[in-house]
Amino acid sequence: MQDLIHYSKKIEEEIIKIDFPSNPSNLYDPLRYFLAIGGKRMRPILTLMGAEAFGSTLEKALPSAMAVELFHNFSLIHDDIMDEAPIRRGQETVHTKWNSNIAILSGDVLLVKAYQMLAKQDASVMSDLLNVFNATAVEVCEGQQFDMDYESRNDVSIDEYIEMIRLKTSVLLGCALEMGAIIAEASKQNRELIYEFGQHIGIAFQIQDDILDLYADPDKFGKQVGGDVLSNKKTLLLLKAYELSNSTQKEELETLYNEKDPDLKVSTVRKYFNSIGVRDACKEIMDTHYSIAKEALYKINIPIEKKDPLLQLAAFLMEREV
Amino acid sequence: MQDLIHYSKKIEEEIIKIDFPSNPSNLYDPLRYFLAIGGKRMRPILTLMGAEAFGSTLEKALPSAMAVELFHNFSLIHDDIMDEAPIRRGQETVHTKWNSNIAILSGDVLLVKAYQMLAKQDASVMSDLLNVFNATAVEVCEGQQFDMDYESRNDVSIDEYIEMIRLKTSVLLGCALEMGAIIAEASKQNRELIYEFGQHIGIAFQIQDDILDLYADPDKFGKQVGGDVLSNKKTLLLLKAYELSNSTQKEELETLYNEKDPDLKVSTVRKYFNSIGVRDACKEIMDTHYSIAKEALYKINIPIEKKDPLLQLAAFLMEREV
Repeated sequence: MQDLIHYSKKIEEEIIKIDFPSNPSNLYDPLRYFLAIGGKRMRPILTLMGAEAFGSTLEKALPSAMAVELFHNFSLIHDDIMDEAPIRRGQETVHTKWNSNIAILSGDVLLVKAYQMLAKQDASVMSDLLNVFNATAVEVCEGQQFDMDYESRNDVSIDEYIEMIRLKTSVLLGCALEMGAIIAEASKQNRELIYEFGQHIGIAFQIQDDILDLYADPDKFGKQVGGDVLSNKKTLLLLKAYELSNSTQKEELETLYNEKDPDLKVSTVRKYFNSIGVRDACKEIMDTHYSIAKEALYKINIPIEKKDPLLQLAAFLMEREV
Repeated sequence: MQDLIHYSKKIEEEIIKIDFPSNPSNLYDPLRYFLAIGGKRMRPILTLMGAEAFGSTLEKALPSAMAVELFHNFSLIHDDIMDEAPIRRGQETVHTKWNSNIAILSGDVLLVKAYQMLAKQDASVMSDLLNVFNATAVEVCEGQQFDMDYESRNDVSIDEYIEMIRLKTSVLLGCALEMGAIIAEASKQNRELIYEFGQHIGIAFQIQDDILDLYADPDKFGKQVGGDVLSNKKTLLLLKAYELSNSTQKEELETLYNEKDPDLKVSTVRKYFNSIGVRDACKEIMDTHYSIAKEALYKINIPIEKKDPLLQLAAFLMEREV
């Protein structure tokens, strides 16, 4: 997708422009470091696309796009502390490279910086922007708390899991698009529809993430295939496997998860999932959300060619191998 | 001060009105708990007073007052993790009662809730409110980072220390007052002056805190007198003691700080401080900031009787014994 590069270049330029003070260096060095590591910049790109879809310009939406990207990075820095994750995007996480206190505080200041970006938008749209941004930020925190709560629960339902990923990751995609729409002064109905589009693309994207973790091509994936299985993570695949298993099979599954040899564990779990149709069942849920997303996009009242970049992006995300 | 009770009652009423969701309970229970512990509610009271001083009403300023109070509580929850503080206001801190992850995340959501409060104010003043609130929030984080950095440094100057407490605690008092002034549509000059008043009251207040820690009446103080000495905390008293000591005396001071018996340590350090005039020297710095504050208030272009509540509050804060 040629267009994606055009958008992401714009975001990278803006990120480089951020002029963090040199002192206190323990507060700002981690932010310089973490923002330079990169990432797909998918969320701010959605804001730019949302603005253009409804007739505004990319430039006008840049502050909001940056607010969304800074917020996302704040949440990653704090999530990494809570999840005790040593590596993010192939590099050391902030709390590993520095320490947890520094990661807490630099995350905090990054969240405030997100609001400073937001405050650059026109006063006429500020109230609407703040409302969707604030509500989303609260939901993202709720999603992270549910995710942590579910680690110690053995009765998480598939509905609860989908609701958790909706809060933790998908609402921010909907929010990103709607902020673009707000800046372009789209109608309330169009705003709601593009939010729906983003939210369901987000859910489908996250399910795709769960599937890829076990089924990606190891040559293309860039990280260990089967990582979720090895860490006994409750992904949609595992929840679906439990749902599709009878009580004897459930015991078999638990035995597989107790396997100590990592390669053997991943391959036998995969074989077991295949035997009961876990991948297809998850793919079906993913496709359902992809369809709901496209349906919402279809209903938006703008010329069809304005929807093209969003449709392309969605297809790109659904067909990715990484 | 009769008036103070009137204001703080109003704030308590608003705090009780906050309707946090019941789920996820690990996210919201800590906030219900922490906000109920109390505190002086000094900052939101300043916002209400700031609004009234410039002819607006207390009611109009309530959302901003609450934003300031929620922000303050967010910063306390996170600071307590970083400082490994087990007790706050006589009760367990959030990370002690729950755990650090829950304290991080509930702090995060509280910061967003502060912005949700702020977003309730009129669109016409939103931009000015966001600008002062955001800039202050960044400074508070910087102050906390400097405070942590200074723990491992032995060459902190008194200027650096004052700048640290200015950022960590005093700017929020200035901000609280200025937000009230913004809501009342005060002139730019009056806004700056009331901010100055609050900021210097804040610095004086913090120095008072340092002095009281060692010189309070144990019957009135409510916590252990000499706590800062026992934890070897770099307060203004200690920095001043170093400044006033020659090299032989500095060695003597270090010996005193190595004393293991707590009561003996506090009493001999106090005796040493008295012998070189530490308390008076700190009191002088405090009085200087109190004077700068009163000077700024004097210059504000409003009828003198409008300044009375602020002058009374300042006097109350400076004469406190707790």
